[in-house]
Amino acid sequence: MKKGLKIATIGGGSSYTPELIEGFIKCYDELPVSEIWLVDIEEGQEKLDIVGNLAKRMIKKSGLPIDVHLTLDRRAALKDADFVTTQLRVGLLDARAKDERIPLKYGVLGQETNGPGGLFKGLRTIPVILDICKDMEELCPDAWLINFTNPAGMVTEAVLRYANINKVVGLCNVPIGMERAVASLLDVEHARVRIDFAGLNHMVYGLDIYLDGVSVKDKVIEMVTDLDDNGLVKNIQGMEWEPEFLKALNVIPCYYHNYYYKSRETFEKVKQEAEAEGTRAEAVHQLEKDLFELYKDPNLDVKPPQLEKRGGAYYSDAAVRLISSIYNDKRDIQPVNTRNNGAIASIPNDSAVEISCIITKDGPKPIAIGDLPVAVRGLVQQIKSFERIAAEAAVTGDRNLAILALTIHPLVASDSLAKQMVDEMLEAHRRYLPQFFSE
Amino acid sequence: MKKGLKIATIGGGSSYTPELIEGFIKCYDELPVSEIWLVDIEEGQEKLDIVGNLAKRMIKKSGLPIDVHLTLDRRAALKDADFVTTQLRVGLLDARAKDERIPLKYGVLGQETNGPGGLFKGLRTIPVILDICKDMEELCPDAWLINFTNPAGMVTEAVLRYANINKVVGLCNVPIGMERAVASLLDVEHARVRIDFAGLNHMVYGLDIYLDGVSVKDKVIEMVTDLDDNGLVKNIQGMEWEPEFLKALNVIPCYYHNYYYKSRETFEKVKQEAEAEGTRAEAVHQLEKDLFELYKDPNLDVKPPQLEKRGGAYYSDAAVRLISSIYNDKRDIQPVNTRNNGAIASIPNDSAVEISCIITKDGPKPIAIGDLPVAVRGLVQQIKSFERIAAEAAVTGDRNLAILALTIHPLVASDSLAKQMVDEMLEAHRRYLPQFFSE
Amino acid sequence: MKKGLKIATIGGGSSYTPELIEGFIKCYDELPVSEIWLVDIEEGQEKLDIVGNLAKRMIKKSGLPIDVHLTLDRRAALKDADFVTTQLRVGLLDARAKDERIPLKYGVLGQETNGPGGLFKGLRTIPVILDICKDMEELCPDAWLINFTNPAGMVTEAVLRYANINKVVGLCNVPIGMERAVASLLDVEHARVRIDFAGLNHMVYGLDIYLDGVSVKDKVIEMVTDLDDNGLVKNIQGMEWEPEFLKALNVIPCYYHNYYYKSRETFEKVKQEAEAEGTRAEAVHQLEKDLFELYKDPNLDVKPPQLEKRGGAYYSDAAVRLISSIYNDKRDIQPVNTRNNGAIASIPNDSAVEISCIITKDGPKPIAIGDLPVAVRGLVQQIKSFERIAAEAAVTGDRNLAILALTIHPLVASDSLAKQMVDEMLEAHRRYLPQFFSE
Amino acid sequence: MKKGLKIATIGGGSSYTPELIEGFIKCYDELPVSEIWLVDIEEGQEKLDIVGNLAKRMIKKSGLPIDVHLTLDRRAALKDADFVTTQLRVGLLDARAKDERIPLKYGVLGQETNGPGGLFKGLRTIPVILDICKDMEELCPDAWLINFTNPAGMVTEAVLRYANINKVVGLCNVPIGMERAVASLLDVEHARVRIDFAGLNHMVYGLDIYLDGVSVKDKVIEMVTDLDDNGLVKNIQGMEWEPEFLKALNVIPCYYHNYYYKSRETFEKVKQEAEAEGTRAEAVHQLEKDLFELYKDPNLDVKPPQLEKRGGAYYSDAAVRLISSIYNDKRDIQPVNTRNNGAIASIPNDSAVEISCIITKDGPKPIAIGDLPVAVRGLVQQIKSFERIAAEAAVTGDRNLAILALTIHPLVASDSLAKQMVDEMLEAHRRYLPQFFSE
Repeated sequence: MKKGLKIATIGGGSSYTPELIEGFIKCYDELPVSEIWLVDIEEGQEKLDIVGNLAKRMIKKSGLPIDVHLTLDRRAALKDADFVTTQLRVGLLDARAKDERIPLKYGVLGQETNGPGGLFKGLRTIPVILDICKDMEELCPDAWLINFTNPAGMVTEAVLRYANINKVVGLCNVPIGMERAVASLLDVEHARVRIDFAGLNHMVYGLDIYLDGVSVKDKVIEMVTDLDDNGLVKNIQGMEWEPEFLKALNVIPCYYHNYYYKSRETFEKVKQEAEAEGTRAEAVHQLEKDLFELYKDPNLDVKPPQLEKRGGAYYSDAAVRLISSIYNDKRDIQPVNTRNNGAIASIPNDSAVEISCIITKDGPKPIAIGDLPVAVRGLVQQIKSFERIAAEAAVTGDRNLAILALTIHPLVASDSLAKQMVDEMLEAHRRYLPQFFSE
Repeated sequence: MKKGLKIATIGGGSSYTPELIEGFIKCYDELPVSEIWLVDIEEGQEKLDIVGNLAKRMIKKSGLPIDVHLTLDRRAALKDADFVTTQLRVGLLDARAKDERIPLKYGVLGQETNGPGGLFKGLRTIPVILDICKDMEELCPDAWLINFTNPAGMVTEAVLRYANINKVVGLCNVPIGMERAVASLLDVEHARVRIDFAGLNHMVYGLDIYLDGVSVKDKVIEMVTDLDDNGLVKNIQGMEWEPEFLKALNVIPCYYHNYYYKSRETFEKVKQEAEAEGTRAEAVHQLEKDLFELYKDPNLDVKPPQLEKRGGAYYSDAAVRLISSIYNDKRDIQPVNTRNNGAIASIPNDSAVEISCIITKDGPKPIAIGDLPVAVRGLVQQIKSFERIAAEAAVTGDRNLAILALTIHPLVASDSLAKQMVDEMLEAHRRYLPQFFSE
Repeated sequence: MKKGLKIATIGGGSSYTPELIEGFIKCYDELPVSEIWLVDIEEGQEKLDIVGNLAKRMIKKSGLPIDVHLTLDRRAALKDADFVTTQLRVGLLDARAKDERIPLKYGVLGQETNGPGGLFKGLRTIPVILDICKDMEELCPDAWLINFTNPAGMVTEAVLRYANINKVVGLCNVPIGMERAVASLLDVEHARVRIDFAGLNHMVYGLDIYLDGVSVKDKVIEMVTDLDDNGLVKNIQGMEWEPEFLKALNVIPCYYHNYYYKSRETFEKVKQEAEAEGTRAEAVHQLEKDLFELYKDPNLDVKPPQLEKRGGAYYSDAAVRLISSIYNDKRDIQPVNTRNNGAIASIPNDSAVEISCIITKDGPKPIAIGDLPVAVRGLVQQIKSFERIAAEAAVTGDRNLAILALTIHPLVASDSLAKQMVDEMLEAHRRYLPQFFSE
Repeated sequence: MKKGLKIATIGGGSSYTPELIEGFIKCYDELPVSEIWLVDIEEGQEKLDIVGNLAKRMIKKSGLPIDVHLTLDRRAALKDADFVTTQLRVGLLDARAKDERIPLKYGVLGQETNGPGGLFKGLRTIPVILDICKDMEELCPDAWLINFTNPAGMVTEAVLRYANINKVVGLCNVPIGMERAVASLLDVEHARVRIDFAGLNHMVYGLDIYLDGVSVKDKVIEMVTDLDDNGLVKNIQGMEWEPEFLKALNVIPCYYHNYYYKSRETFEKVKQEAEAEGTRAEAVHQLEKDLFELYKDPNLDVKPPQLEKRGGAYYSDAAVRLISSIYNDKRDIQPVNTRNNGAIASIPNDSAVEISCIITKDGPKPIAIGDLPVAVRGLVQQIKSFERIAAEAAVTGDRNLAILALTIHPLVASDSLAKQMVDEMLEAHRRYLPQFFSE
């Protein structure tokens, strides 16, 4: 008899790993994990050791019978795994810095999950993920792939279209963050708030908002568009929409919609920050360095609070909650990236969407929403087209497709710019994009 | 017994009218027109007289038994009409100049059929067209409305959604121009070339191209992306796409796609032209002045060749060809704006699309194309959403909807800019937008 | 402040009422009902008194603070109700007997929820239900209508299309019965089995079957198609499908599919039973008589076990479980009749389907299933078309539509038979079909 | 340079061949055929010789430079063909007689294009047609396959799903017959009548009817449902629908709809005819014998008028008209069986439908109709499901699928009957169904 669950975490040397470990410790009662395999590549050996040893100390402190394995042998880790989580970064933060810097030169937003940066992160990442899927097919065909790797929508799309495994879920902390923000606005506990989510990863909308099951969307829109005593709009952070726009839109955009509904302002802001403080990759680089210094401390045996600044808040919650709901057939509602299956009319059935699902042992089952509001269908479909063409480019190494994907992206909207950026970025990331450089 | 067809031309004082008159004269054998009623508003009385008298001289010269009536009484013109054509401009060229100028200040393209200019032309025009439809319901319920008025897609959408007449066709000369350009590239007669069109007005794609019925799309794409002896891409005018982009796109965009696939370059070009030579409205203003001077000449009894510079080339051909095919149940293929009826999967059945149709006495019947290529679906749907919300704003006078429409338009993509432009343009066009200013 | 929930039960004199009362008593902890209003029409006064007094004795025995009201004043009952349940029978069992008898003469199955019987039950019932909806709009606009009245699919369709209330759920005990049958086959507790249901009322399919969240559909199909030691197929009752058919179908039909997949055999069986023992209505008539004799006993203060033979087993469970899940925003999965909303691709979004839903305070949210298997789409759509046209006939009183509905019904498939049956049944039910007999 | 068109006619020994030859002679001016290859199998050698020699005499009399080749070598005939027509009958009339006789024993209609007969004709025919397609792929990849072989809908479906050629059109004379019947009813020339057809082969509906381009559907329905002086409905033959039904249906069914809308009456009629005069196959057998006697006459050099009784009236017209429109890129409207491509919403895009199309050199392009009327969607989809599952059974030789196909067919509707008939018919046709009998 199997003694417990085996988890394989690809990219186990990530600074996020303590989040995940903490989650497994907290949920042990309902999720009897017996082995956690942290896998990394040779380049990441040092980080794997540091964070892996912290993980071991955390487990030891918990007193739980969980074995933590550190390994560069991915196949050994995958063998008979029950859940595989992926949190990898091909090319590390150096590559991210390029994704963020190069577009700025062309007057285009540089960001690692959208636009040119998102495209190139996808081009580097998708072949690696598909390779993992092939190994899974052979070594753990019944395992679930829980992908946290960005761009999560594009990666999930690629797995659905090009891999031979069906058990994949893409996970993001944006929806859970939206629920928490609304709970905080309403000054209630998170558990009392539920949002009907639908859209794509980093392009998800809250179609309705419930407090204790009763719709409070109108009230929330009223609250965030109201003026305070100083005549300023009482927004919540990251939701500073023009009241007129939000009222007519009548659904709740997410943080990343700033790129599309405040495109010029966001570009200027990102550009100025890059000039003043460096890009996000550069900031994260320092954060990570500091974190790993902390992690080295042999007396540290808990997740250090500094990790929360890193950006992945609630990932642990979201990931462990998802894994537990699958394992325990909980049938609760969670927003994840999965096959659309007709839930959103204007997206093909076989494409990945981010949507509120019932999480069962058989995987996520999306709740049918009919269709997205007229005002958002086009943008969502455009980004979905971008993701599909980008995924095809990643698999085929077809430069023309990469240029097409970027041309139709709303942040670029220029075939000449697209061509120039693709060419410069292909060269910059050449080492990680062999599919484009085979003769 | 009725002696022949009655045509009512709303906006009959337009400088284009001689085009139409020439068309009716040329086609008299198959299209027995007996009355042409040119209608205008009081403001346009002088132009109506000038162009109307030219029309009378043209008819007289032709020797055909057609009566030309000039009138300000729209209801008299509509009474028992067989075909109603609309070529009106609410606010005349002054309003157009504002549509073109104001957005430029905000760094946004100013153009009368797209973006902020298109929105405001629609807001001014749609109530007038719906008013005409109401009169038609009463005075000529069996007549066809042939709309040339821009933005033709948005206007057709509004008529389909908000009027009680079914017999409406929107017409544009862009598709016929594309066919002619391809014919010229292939150095063959226009009649030998046919293009499968699908999309929206000013956002139409050539899905396939046939020479004598045989697909030559690949050859055409090869030709336009090939390098000439000087190493330059052998484009045809208005189709200067990056070869990589066009090959991957694999359908033929139209001239107006420059706004979306070369957005920055087009903005810069339009801006520089506006600074150097004035906007298009301003150029047209001079052209029109010159044309009307010519039209005054009592010896002129033909369409003067100078009219071709005005921009509406082939309109006469397209319009009379359409009217004749309806009247004669010709069942030939023409690209027009009509109810989608399932022909394009990603557009609602009840929305207007620009698509190759069979033209029958019962109206245009769109040819099913399955769906648009993945790469273009999103953009087309986004513009369709813009048109729908704009049409609703035009009918309701809801400022929030106008701001929403502009925010989701790819040329704007900013709620703050949208709000500022809407507010400035509402004020600038106040006289023609009573629906937004009722208390 | 409101002290508790008010339930209005239309058709409260039904012999089923003790089921419902028992359910509310059992669930009082999570469903704080304070008033139950049992409503009936004058014709039903005596039964209402008998069953209503039993209900009062049951409540009294429970010691719970629930008031039971017996009334003929529907509007008083509806006023401020929280949930309205409908379990009415227009024309009582006499009408049912005609629905069952008349078709048999024409060689057509007589049954009260399908074919001619279902049509005429719908024609009699729909106007009454729509009338209740109008009262609800006025008197309790926030209440949920929980309809048990057959034909539940057609009635729900009619409410969705022709009433102005949105809060309606149709409920049937067939799905719960299927789960119980499978649980019994697998020899496990019901709670461990879950079936993904999709289709229409009395035409629902089990698309997949889970035991503790793991699919066991193949095993179940294997079990029910296997031969036992005597060489007989080991079916479960009502699932005696030919093994080859069931294996190729690969989903689980419901009991009522016998009418369509064993149409001739079922007709013969029903006909013989009618001849030998009388129709179901006639059998039920005796059962009811016996039940009401029992109910009269002033010492009886529990639901008598004889009620279970009546046919509505699990209705109490299903109904109270549904009401409690709505009230408590439980978000559990239950199969109900609700607006499709895109969950089943081949059924219109705005039609009623019977499908596994998440039950929230905001109502049922169907889980997207993509599409039904190819083999069943046509039949499901045909019955849906029958239901839609029947609902339209019920509302308009259009005899032609009634004949059309019956002609396209697979059990009839003859325009002449349809016409003859419609005419005979219109006459037979004339008293309850005023909409067909107005001049 | 190619001197003219090469036609390959598979099943060239058919008694229909003189029809086709006459058609090619009549249309030579617009369709310059230079070679006609009549192909048959060894079993058909004698008939091929007889009809082939008649064909040669017909051509000789015409004086046209067309070579007629008679051959058993299919590959030689296909080599470089421009059009391939298929009019074959696997198992000849003996097999047809079984298709018609066996079902009658089970109380089910026996007919060669519907129900059990249609299923088994499909099971025998589809593998042969797919084999021809494979040869075409190799020997004449640019040729069009014009299939007349029944069941034409199922065969076209199979080619679309399982063959690697795209250029296939299924052709039937039912629509043209409907147009002629309506023309005759209206007492006008056929050319003035046009019907908008949509549906499936042998299940096609006339959605609208035009006389000189103007809708006369209401008038036609009025005419055929009206009573004559004797109080009888003035139907046209094969359209004897109950007036109430037809008015509510509001589209025009075809002759074969009698099987579904008058199922019992039609079964009785066919059964009585079979008993009295023999089945259709048996009648045709005699007809064919007589025809071949006539054909043998060395002085006969025209199509004998007796051929018209054979049942394929207008096939020649329809076939040559179709081939000429493709060859000449005529872009006229013809009803054919082709890929749906979104034209009918409730049928999958990649399925075969029978629908009014524009016939171009690039093949038929269906005219979008939105969706079929609610009343007919279900039946059409059910027959489409039957065709799909039958085609899959034909390709895989899966007996379970054959039983499923027959169970869901509305004429059968019984899994036990389906199983019995499949088993008896598999045995009866064993020689032509090797795919079901391989070990």
